[in-house]
Amino acid sequence: MRVMGVDPGLTRCGLSMVDSGPGRKVVALDVGVVRTPPEAELALRLMAVADAAEEWMDTHRPEAVAIERVFAQHNVRTAMGTAQAGGVIALAAARRGIRVAFHTPSEVKAAVTGHGTADKAQVTAMVTRILGLQVAPKPADAADALALAICHCWRAPLLDRMAAAQAKADEVRRRYEQRLAEQRKVVRG
Amino acid sequence: MRVMGVDPGLTRCGLSMVDSGPGRKVVALDVGVVRTPPEAELALRLMAVADAAEEWMDTHRPEAVAIERVFAQHNVRTAMGTAQAGGVIALAAARRGIRVAFHTPSEVKAAVTGHGTADKAQVTAMVTRILGLQVAPKPADAADALALAICHCWRAPLLDRMAAAQAKADEVRRRYEQRLAEQRKVVRG
Repeated sequence: MRVMGVDPGLTRCGLSMVDSGPGRKVVALDVGVVRTPPEAELALRLMAVADAAEEWMDTHRPEAVAIERVFAQHNVRTAMGTAQAGGVIALAAARRGIRVAFHTPSEVKAAVTGHGTADKAQVTAMVTRILGLQVAPKPADAADALALAICHCWRAPLLDRMAAAQAKADEVRRRYEQRLAEQRKVVRG
Repeated sequence: MRVMGVDPGLTRCGLSMVDSGPGRKVVALDVGVVRTPPEAELALRLMAVADAAEEWMDTHRPEAVAIERVFAQHNVRTAMGTAQAGGVIALAAARRGIRVAFHTPSEVKAAVTGHGTADKAQVTAMVTRILGLQVAPKPADAADALALAICHCWRAPLLDRMAAAQAKADEVRRRYEQRLAEQRKVVRG
């Protein structure tokens, strides 16, 4: 499976492309950071981020795009810009028929380091080791984008199985309620 | 000037189109609300909102798109979705070369009612009166989208004059600093 990882942002947006093989094998194809000047208009900054992400999608044709889920941060203004950058990338993926998944920072940290409260240095070190890179990816946004893609490669099969189990449970329940309704009719009839 | 007003949201996104004439004359061309189901995937909800907004832009060809600036709300999750809906619409406008402006809720309220703390009913009542509508626009998101467009029609000339004054001030300062640097060279030389 080919997964594009996105650490969304306006000032720095981390992008990565990772291929997963059998088991937990993952290979990095590309990683980079898109930067837009803070003094530029918001709409133009979003366009620069979207243009770059779309070029990555059209070049590498990933099967899924994994984006970090944004929560309230210390700086609300920054959080909004981050959410919007993630939003335009999610839209670009949806328009190409590419699946979009959001993972929280702690899900990503837990996936690559084993614990959800790891710091940036630990995430970078594990990403470097997992992908067998010669040099640690820099800046942190690039490492985070790789961590997101790895997290998705490893979590996706689990999430798919959970979704399948949920769908099965819903179907069983639907049939049960249908039978119940029929029996009630018989009793009342 | 033709302005598209946007009260961004995922569950309900208000859209409006307003033409401004001489003085404070404004005419409503269209108003509506795009709805997306809360249980749908975020990327697909963003796509539905973007599709609708883009159809409005391509049909009415506004000169500017005025979007409500989102601040932290009680519900952070909702605020993020709202910011993202505004983001994909801002992107669509930027790609069409349409100017995008953000106005805060209090700027919008102040523009249409005269005070920045007006409630929803007051905004709706004033929007109805200003546009000379037979019936009050419903739901509140539709009225808000109209209020945003009216606010932009009235504030844009002011903002343009302020931007021009700022640019002039910057130019004067740049020239002053240049002269100062030259004089320093002379003194040192």
